Amino acid sequence: MQSFSPLNSRAPFIWHGGDYNPEQWPRAIWGEDIRLMQECHFEVATLGVFSWVSLQPEEDRFTFEWLDTILDNLAAAGRFVCLATPSAAQPAWMSQRYPDVLRAGETGVRWHHGWRVNYCPCSANYRRLAAQMARKLAERFHQHPAVIAWHVSNEYAGACYCDVCAAAFRVWLQQRYANLDVLNQRWWTAFWSHTYTDWSQIEPPYANGERSNHALVIDYKRFQSEMMLECYKAERDAIRVYSPHLPITTNMMNTYPELDYRAWAKEVDVIAWDCYPSAHDQPSDIAFAHDFMRGLRDGQPFLLMEQTPSSQNWQEYNSLKRPGVLRLWSYLAVAHGAEAVMYFQWRRSRGECEKMHGAIIEHSGRSDTRVFREVRQLGEELLRLRDRTLGGITPSEVAIMFDWNNWWAMEASIGPVRDKRYVATVRQHYATFWKRNVPVDIVFSDSDFSRYRVLIAPMLYMLKPGVAERIREFVRQGGTLVTTYFSGMVDECDLAFENGYPGPLREVLGIWNEEIDALHPEQHNRIVLHDSGESYTCGHLCAITHCEGATTLATYGDDFYAGTPVLTRHNVGAGAAYYIGSEPESRFLDDFYGRILQEQQIHPVLTTPPGVEATLRQNAQGQLLFLLNHQDTLTQVALPPGNRYRDLLRDREVAETLPLEAYDVAILTKA
Amino acid sequence: MQSFSPLNSRAPFIWHGGDYNPEQWPRAIWGEDIRLMQECHFEVATLGVFSWVSLQPEEDRFTFEWLDTILDNLAAAGRFVCLATPSAAQPAWMSQRYPDVLRAGETGVRWHHGWRVNYCPCSANYRRLAAQMARKLAERFHQHPAVIAWHVSNEYAGACYCDVCAAAFRVWLQQRYANLDVLNQRWWTAFWSHTYTDWSQIEPPYANGERSNHALVIDYKRFQSEMMLECYKAERDAIRVYSPHLPITTNMMNTYPELDYRAWAKEVDVIAWDCYPSAHDQPSDIAFAHDFMRGLRDGQPFLLMEQTPSSQNWQEYNSLKRPGVLRLWSYLAVAHGAEAVMYFQWRRSRGECEKMHGAIIEHSGRSDTRVFREVRQLGEELLRLRDRTLGGITPSEVAIMFDWNNWWAMEASIGPVRDKRYVATVRQHYATFWKRNVPVDIVFSDSDFSRYRVLIAPMLYMLKPGVAERIREFVRQGGTLVTTYFSGMVDECDLAFENGYPGPLREVLGIWNEEIDALHPEQHNRIVLHDSGESYTCGHLCAITHCEGATTLATYGDDFYAGTPVLTRHNVGAGAAYYIGSEPESRFLDDFYGRILQEQQIHPVLTTPPGVEATLRQNAQGQLLFLLNHQDTLTQVALPPGNRYRDLLRDREVAETLPLEAYDVAILTKA
Amino acid sequence: MQSFSPLNSRAPFIWHGGDYNPEQWPRAIWGEDIRLMQECHFEVATLGVFSWVSLQPEEDRFTFEWLDTILDNLAAAGRFVCLATPSAAQPAWMSQRYPDVLRAGETGVRWHHGWRVNYCPCSANYRRLAAQMARKLAERFHQHPAVIAWHVSNEYAGACYCDVCAAAFRVWLQQRYANLDVLNQRWWTAFWSHTYTDWSQIEPPYANGERSNHALVIDYKRFQSEMMLECYKAERDAIRVYSPHLPITTNMMNTYPELDYRAWAKEVDVIAWDCYPSAHDQPSDIAFAHDFMRGLRDGQPFLLMEQTPSSQNWQEYNSLKRPGVLRLWSYLAVAHGAEAVMYFQWRRSRGECEKMHGAIIEHSGRSDTRVFREVRQLGEELLRLRDRTLGGITPSEVAIMFDWNNWWAMEASIGPVRDKRYVATVRQHYATFWKRNVPVDIVFSDSDFSRYRVLIAPMLYMLKPGVAERIREFVRQGGTLVTTYFSGMVDECDLAFENGYPGPLREVLGIWNEEIDALHPEQHNRIVLHDSGESYTCGHLCAITHCEGATTLATYGDDFYAGTPVLTRHNVGAGAAYYIGSEPESRFLDDFYGRILQEQQIHPVLTTPPGVEATLRQNAQGQLLFLLNHQDTLTQVALPPGNRYRDLLRDREVAETLPLEAYDVAILTKA
Repeated sequence: MQSFSPLNSRAPFIWHGGDYNPEQWPRAIWGEDIRLMQECHFEVATLGVFSWVSLQPEEDRFTFEWLDTILDNLAAAGRFVCLATPSAAQPAWMSQRYPDVLRAGETGVRWHHGWRVNYCPCSANYRRLAAQMARKLAERFHQHPAVIAWHVSNEYAGACYCDVCAAAFRVWLQQRYANLDVLNQRWWTAFWSHTYTDWSQIEPPYANGERSNHALVIDYKRFQSEMMLECYKAERDAIRVYSPHLPITTNMMNTYPELDYRAWAKEVDVIAWDCYPSAHDQPSDIAFAHDFMRGLRDGQPFLLMEQTPSSQNWQEYNSLKRPGVLRLWSYLAVAHGAEAVMYFQWRRSRGECEKMHGAIIEHSGRSDTRVFREVRQLGEELLRLRDRTLGGITPSEVAIMFDWNNWWAMEASIGPVRDKRYVATVRQHYATFWKRNVPVDIVFSDSDFSRYRVLIAPMLYMLKPGVAERIREFVRQGGTLVTTYFSGMVDECDLAFENGYPGPLREVLGIWNEEIDALHPEQHNRIVLHDSGESYTCGHLCAITHCEGATTLATYGDDFYAGTPVLTRHNVGAGAAYYIGSEPESRFLDDFYGRILQEQQIHPVLTTPPGVEATLRQNAQGQLLFLLNHQDTLTQVALPPGNRYRDLLRDREVAETLPLEAYDVAILTKA
Repeated sequence: MQSFSPLNSRAPFIWHGGDYNPEQWPRAIWGEDIRLMQECHFEVATLGVFSWVSLQPEEDRFTFEWLDTILDNLAAAGRFVCLATPSAAQPAWMSQRYPDVLRAGETGVRWHHGWRVNYCPCSANYRRLAAQMARKLAERFHQHPAVIAWHVSNEYAGACYCDVCAAAFRVWLQQRYANLDVLNQRWWTAFWSHTYTDWSQIEPPYANGERSNHALVIDYKRFQSEMMLECYKAERDAIRVYSPHLPITTNMMNTYPELDYRAWAKEVDVIAWDCYPSAHDQPSDIAFAHDFMRGLRDGQPFLLMEQTPSSQNWQEYNSLKRPGVLRLWSYLAVAHGAEAVMYFQWRRSRGECEKMHGAIIEHSGRSDTRVFREVRQLGEELLRLRDRTLGGITPSEVAIMFDWNNWWAMEASIGPVRDKRYVATVRQHYATFWKRNVPVDIVFSDSDFSRYRVLIAPMLYMLKPGVAERIREFVRQGGTLVTTYFSGMVDECDLAFENGYPGPLREVLGIWNEEIDALHPEQHNRIVLHDSGESYTCGHLCAITHCEGATTLATYGDDFYAGTPVLTRHNVGAGAAYYIGSEPESRFLDDFYGRILQEQQIHPVLTTPPGVEATLRQNAQGQLLFLLNHQDTLTQVALPPGNRYRDLLRDREVAETLPLEAYDVAILTKA
Repeated sequence: MQSFSPLNSRAPFIWHGGDYNPEQWPRAIWGEDIRLMQECHFEVATLGVFSWVSLQPEEDRFTFEWLDTILDNLAAAGRFVCLATPSAAQPAWMSQRYPDVLRAGETGVRWHHGWRVNYCPCSANYRRLAAQMARKLAERFHQHPAVIAWHVSNEYAGACYCDVCAAAFRVWLQQRYANLDVLNQRWWTAFWSHTYTDWSQIEPPYANGERSNHALVIDYKRFQSEMMLECYKAERDAIRVYSPHLPITTNMMNTYPELDYRAWAKEVDVIAWDCYPSAHDQPSDIAFAHDFMRGLRDGQPFLLMEQTPSSQNWQEYNSLKRPGVLRLWSYLAVAHGAEAVMYFQWRRSRGECEKMHGAIIEHSGRSDTRVFREVRQLGEELLRLRDRTLGGITPSEVAIMFDWNNWWAMEASIGPVRDKRYVATVRQHYATFWKRNVPVDIVFSDSDFSRYRVLIAPMLYMLKPGVAERIREFVRQGGTLVTTYFSGMVDECDLAFENGYPGPLREVLGIWNEEIDALHPEQHNRIVLHDSGESYTCGHLCAITHCEGATTLATYGDDFYAGTPVLTRHNVGAGAAYYIGSEPESRFLDDFYGRILQEQQIHPVLTTPPGVEATLRQNAQGQLLFLLNHQDTLTQVALPPGNRYRDLLRDREVAETLPLEAYDVAILTKA
C-alpha cells in the first residue's frame, strides 16, 4: 500500500505546537513558557516569524544570541522548533534606507512603512536582505538539535504596483511572448486602440489605469504570484545550502485568491497552511480546505501550521470555539491528511492589532483555563497516537478540479454576471460527496487524471494548452467527466475560442452552447429529468445548449428555452462526459452524483447519520476510520456489521454501534 | 403636414447595421463578414470607432490602407458606412509622448494610460491630434461611395481635473463673469471665507478640495460639458471642410448626467444614441428615452446608433433579450422617431472587457443562431418598409420639461433630502401619458412652449434667466402649466431667490411655499381632493404652501400641515397653472392628468389593453399607427370601429380587432 | 446652596440669539436685520465666524470697518455680541501663499484649498496668522459695549497627517516617553518587527501605512486633539491680553469622536455647544448630550451655542421641527443647565452648501412665518424669565463615566467585535435614569467620584493610571460601582493587563473574566436572576466570569456557559461593586437600577407619565421643577400632593394636576 515517509524522522508524530514569539516578552517569562509547554505537550514551536528587527536591529548588526538561548532551552526541555525566516515584515530602518522595499498600491503610489507584507517582491534590496537573513539563520542553526523544519516568511500575499515591478513585468512579458505583435494579438489589443507599439508602454493594471484588458490583468496576477514565489525560492535556496535535509515550507491560506499555490506546491517540501474558517463556513467547507491543501502536492500529508485555540479577532463577530470544537477540528485536519496540529499562537501579545486574537496562554498568563485544558487534553491524545496516523493516503476515486488561472480569468471577466461564484460552486460539488463520506481529491489542470474514475471540473472557463486533450483522453480510457456551464470559453490569454463554447471540450461533451442567460437572484428555472420526471430548481447562469452527439438527460422546465438540454451525457470511448447547463440546487447534485457513484460502484467509507463525517486514511500500518460528530448532540453511529474495531483515542474495542458525544471523535482500526 | 427630409438621400430607408471593427480580426475573416452582412441585411457599418492606433501607429505614420480595402469591399457589396473618428481612445504612444493628454481624476491626480475616454478635453495635444485625424479621414474618404454619415468619437463622458483644465476654467470664468467681484457675489463666496481675491485661487471642485461651493460645482460641470463639446466641434469642423454635405453626429447616452446634450444637440446634424436599458427599466422608461432623444432637436427623427442584439455585459446580471424583444424594442425606437436600428456590435471581440457583450456574430462565428435569425428577420422587414416611416413627426400636445443645469444644481444641493429623484420624477410624470397612449414631447428650458397645450415642469428648482417669463407667457396665452414642489428656488448660479419660493414662478402659480418638509422613506402624508374627497399617498418632500391667488384643489391629510394646500390651480390670462406640493403615488398623477386631458380635449392615439402601446407618427405619406405588445402573452387590440387598416409588416388588411402575439408589433395605415 | 455666577453680569439672562453673518449680505439689509432682531428678541449675535477674508483680504490689509458699523448698530439697538475669531476657514490667499496651512488627508497627501477646517493645526503660519487676527480683534473690540463674550474659531474637528504634524508628533512622543526603548516596550513594537530603532522612523498612522499599532493610533489621536487645543489656546491667550474679564470659549459637538473635550474643558471659561440631534435620536439622547456637556466642567451651566430653528440639511432626510419642538428642545437645554438658547443661523445664506439649512429668516426674508413666530414667542418667554434660571445646579447622586481615551482605544481595537457600541451603551445606561427622572451627572476618569452615591462606568476597557485606585476608594467609602463586560483590559498605552481581566478592577469587583464570547446579531443569551428567576435577553458580548469573592446575582441561561455568572456583586468596605457581564435588553437595566435606587434611597424628581420628563435645577433663588412633554398629545401630570406651584411661563398657580399640551413645557417653583 502506498504511503509517505514521516516529514522528519526525529519527530515521527503529529506535531503539536504553534507560533511562539519570545522576543516580545521579557526573559523572566521564558522559563514559565517552557514549563507550560511541557504541561500541555506543546512539542513544536514555530520561532522567528516577524523577528527581523530583533535579529538585525541595524543593517550591519546581527543579534542571534537571544535565539540561541531560546533554542537551547527548548532543546533542553525536549521541544522541537520549526524555525522561521522573518521576512514577512521588514524593519523600519530598511524601509527608511531603501524606500524601494516598500510596496506600491493599486494606483502605483508607494505605501508608507507599517503593517506587514508591505514589501515589493521585485525589490533587489528586499530580496538581497531577506536571502542574507535566511542564509545567516541556516548557517547558525542548521545543526541545532531542536530544529526540525524551516518556515520561510509568512503568509505571502497581495501584489505590488511599483515602477520596479512594472519594469520587471515588461521583462517577464518579453520572455513569455517574445515579440510585441504576438502579445498584441494574444491580448486582443486592437480593441479600444490598446495596441502597444513599444514594450515601454506596458504598465501594470493600475486601478486608475488599464483594467479593461483582462489578459493584462491575468498576466499581472501570474507575474506577481511568480515574483512572490521567487522571493520564497531565494530564501529556500539560501537555507538549502546549509541545511540540505530539513523540510522547507511556507504557510498558505486555503483558496487564497492572489497566489497560484499549485505552482508554489512544487517548490515546498511539504504543504503547510493556516486554517481560519470564516463565520459562515460549514464543516464541509473546512473539510474541503484540507483536501484542497492535500491535493496541492498530489496527496502528500500536510501541516496544519496555524489555527486559533479559541477565537479569531479580525472578523466582524468573533465567536469562541465551543468546548470540544478545537479537538474536533484538529482531528478533522488529521482525518484529511494533516501531520501537524499547530496554533497561532502560544501567548497572546499584550499590544498591537492581534491582542484580541485567541492564544493558548491568554493575558491572564494562567493555565487553569478552558482553552489551556482543551489544548492539553488534545496534546496528550496526539502524543498517544504517536506515528499511527502518519504517512497515510486518502483513497479517492473522485477528483474535483480547481485552477487559479481559471479563477483569475473568471473574476476579471465582465459579464454575464458580476459574481461568478467559482469557489462556492467547487465547494458545492464537493459537499455532495462529503455528505456521503465518499473521499475526494482536489486536482489541478496539470494533475494526473488517470488515477480517478470520476473527474469533476466545474466552470472550466479557461482551458490552458493540452488540458482539453488530457480530459478527452481520460474519458476515452473509461473515465467519467462532469463539467458545467461557463466552461471551455477562453484560452490561457483569455481569448475566446472561435469555434463556439465549450471550445476544445465540444467534441468530448458532444454539445454546442449557443447562448448563456444570466438570471437575477429572484429568478429561477428548472431542471427536469427525462427518465424520472423529477424537477429541480436552477439559476444564476443558464447555458442554452444543442446536442451534437450527446444525449439529453434533462431539459429546462421554463422560459423560452424550456425543453432544451440542461443535462447531457456523451459516451466517448470507454467513458462518458456529462454537462450540467445551470447552477442547480444541491439536491440535484446529490441525486445526480448518487447515480454516478452507483454506476461506478464507488462506495462511501461508511454511511453515517447527518452531521457525522467518516473518512478513511491508510498507511503502512493499515486503515484508519475517522468518525467526527459535527453536531452538538450525542449521535449513534452504526458500524459495519460483523467487524470489531479498536478506538485509538479511548483505547477500547467497539462494534456494531458507536455513540459519539457532541463534537466527539473516534479513530478506529479493525481489531 | 410637417415632416423631415431623409438624413441621406442615398440611403432613404431605416439604417440597419452597427459597429464593425475589422481591424481586430485577421483579413481572412473579412470576406465572411460581408457574406453574413448580406445575409442579414446589415446595410450600414459603423467603422473606425476606437481605431486610432490602427490608423496612426506612430505620430508620423498613417495606415489608412486597410480602411480603404474595407470601404471598397463594403461598397462593392452594396453596404454603406457611417465613418467614425477614433478619438475616444488615444494610442499608448500618445499618452507616453504627451502626458498632458491623460485625464486627471477628482483629486487632480492624472490617471495612467488605459481604458477609454481617458483624455483631457482641454489638452492642446489631444485636440490637435484628434482634429488632424478627423481631417485626414475626411480628406481621404469624403467622396467614398459607401460613406453616408460621420460619427465623431464615441460616447463623450466624464470630466477631467488636471491643471490644464484648471487654467482653462479660469479663462472660461473670466469670460462668464468679467470681474472677480461679480463672481464672488454670484457664487456667494463670503460664506465660509471663500471669497477669491485673485483669479489664480480658483480651482476645480476637487474631491479633496472645494465642493461646498455649489455654484463652482455647477459651473465646472458646464465648463467640462462645453470643453468636451469643443473637442467634438473641432473634429466636426475639420470634417466639414471636406465633407460639407454628409450628416455629422456623435452618439449620446440617454439622460447622461455629465453632458448637457441640449447644448450639444445644436452642434450635431442629427441625434444618435445608444440604448442600453438598465435591468429594472420599464417599457415606459425606454419609450421616454426615445422621446427624450427626439426632443433634443425639437422633434427631428434620430438614429438608434447602438443596442445589443442579445445581452449587455456590464450590469450585475445580464439577461438575454427574450425572443421577439429585439424586434419589439427596435420598432419601439421607430415608433418614437428612430430612422436607424443599429447594433453594438457586428462581431463579438475575442478578448478584452467586452468579449461577453452581445453581438450579431458571437464567438462561434455561426449564423445559425437565434440572435442572427432575429436580426435577419428584422432586417428583411425594415428593408420592406423602405422609406415609409421616414421623416415623420409625433403630434404631441403635451410637453414635459427636462434641464441638465437644473439636475446638476439639485444634485449639488445639500438638503432637504440627499436623493432628489429628479430623473425618476420626470419619468413618473411621463409614464402616466405613456400608459394612456397620449403623445408627449420632451422639451427644454429654451424650447418653444407655444407648440403645446400642456407644459409639465417637475421640480424646476433652477430657473435660468427668462424661463419664468416665457412660462408665464405660455399660460397667459391659454396654456396649462403643471409644476411641483422644489421649483423656483435658485437662479442660474444656484443663488436662492430672495422673494421666497417658487421665486419668479410665484406670480403665475399664485402661491407662496413657506417651508419644505422632508419625509423618511417610511413616512407618508396624504393628498385629499376637495371635490371628490379621494385620497392619495404622498411623501419624499412636502411643500407647505399658502395660496396667493390660486385655488386649493387638494389639501394634506395628515401632520401639522394637514388642511394646507397640496394641489392648487391658478387661472392666469387664458390659461391655468397647477402646483403639486408633494411626490404623489402614480395613481394620483393618472387621475389628475386624466382630468386635464379631458378638459383640454386631448385624446389618446388609441385605447389599448394594459401593456400594449400605441403611438402615432405622421409624415408626408400619411399617418402610421404603431401597436406594440410589451406583454409576453397574446393580446387582442380593438381598433377604431368602422376603419380598415393595412398592416405594413404583414402586408394584410385588418379591422375591428387585431390579435398581437407576445412581443409582437403592427404598423397600420388607414386602408 | 451651591450655585454659579452669571457668565456676564451685563447680560444676566438666558442669551437668545445666534450666528449672524452680515458680511454675506448687502448693507441695505443690515437695518432690516436689526428691526427683525428686535421684533423676535434676538438679543445676542454671534459675529465673525468664518469672516477671515472679509477682515483681512490680503496679508497686509485689514478691513474691520464693516464690523465697527455692525457692532455699533447692534449696540445702539440694545443687542449684544458674542464675537468670534474667524480662524475656522483660512482665506484662499493664505493657502496659496503658505501651502503648509493646508491639511493633509489620511495618506499624507495635502488637500486642496476649500471647504472649512482645512488647516494643519501644527502649521506655524496658520498659528501665527490666526493668533494675529485674534489679537487684532481683541485689541479693537475688547471695550466695545456690545461684546459680552469671545467665541474662538468654530467646531474644531478632524486631524492632519502632513509632514509638519509628523515632525511635531515625534517631538511630542519624545516628551511623553523620554527614550525609544520605553516607547517600543509600551507600544509592544516587537510584534511584526515594528520596533523603531530611530525616532525618525515614527510616522503618523497613515491609512496606507501603520495602523496595526493601536498605541500609535491612540497616541496620534491624543496628539492631534492637543495640537488643535494648542491652536485654541494661542488665540485665547492673544485675546486675554486685551480682554481679561470676558468669557472665552469655543463651540463643541456632543460626543465628537476626534477631540478629548474633557481636556479642552479646562481651557474654556464656559462650555458652548452645537446641538444637532440625528434623525433617530430619542429625547433621552438629547438630554444625555446636555448632561454630558454640563459634566465637562463639573456641573457649570453651559451655552447652547447653535441649534436649528427648523431643519438641518446635511442628513439623508431633514425633517422640519414640528410646531412646539423648537421651544420644547430649547427648554430641554435650559432644564439641563443651558444659559443660552442660540441658533444657527439668523439669515439663511443664499448660496453655497448651507443654503438649505434652517434659519430664523428664510430666503423669503419674511417674518410672517411659522418659524419666526416660534422664535419670537420663545424670545418673549425667555426675556420674561430674566435671571430666574441662571447659575443653577442639577442635584445628582448618580454619575455615569465617559472617557475619550477609552473610546479611542476600543475603536482602534480589532476584535472581538468590530462595532463596540461604546457611546450607545453609555446612552443606554443613561436612558434608564432619564425615564425615571433621576438626575445624572456625566463624569470622567479624573472627576471627583466622592460627590456621588452611584458610579456607573460601562465598558471601561482602558484604565489610565490611578483610576482603578480611585474607583476602589470610592467603593470602600460606601459608593456603589456598576461596570460591565469589556472593562479593565488595557492600560493607557493599550497594553493588556497581565493579571487577566478586569485587570486592576479585579480586586474591587471580586471576579475574573476568563473569556469573552462575541455573538452574531441574530444570536442571544439570557440573564437569569437568582432571586426572582426573572429572565432577560442579552447579547453582543458575553464575558465568561469566575467569582473571586463576589456573589453571583444572575447567571447565563444558555450555551456552554449557561449557569456561569453574568451579574455579580462584591461588597468592599462600606460599598459594593456590580459587574454586568453582557449587553442586556433595556428592561434589565430598568429593573437592576430600580433596585439600586431603592437600596440607595435615591428618589426621582417626580414620577411622570411616559414621555413627560421632569428635571430639577436649583440656584440661589430656589428650586425649579421643569416639566417637558415630549409627546405629541395632551398629558396630565400629577404634582406632589399638598404643594402649590407657580408656573413661571404662564405666570399662574398650579396644584395637584398640571395639563401639558403636546410638546408643552412648564417651569414650576413652589408657591
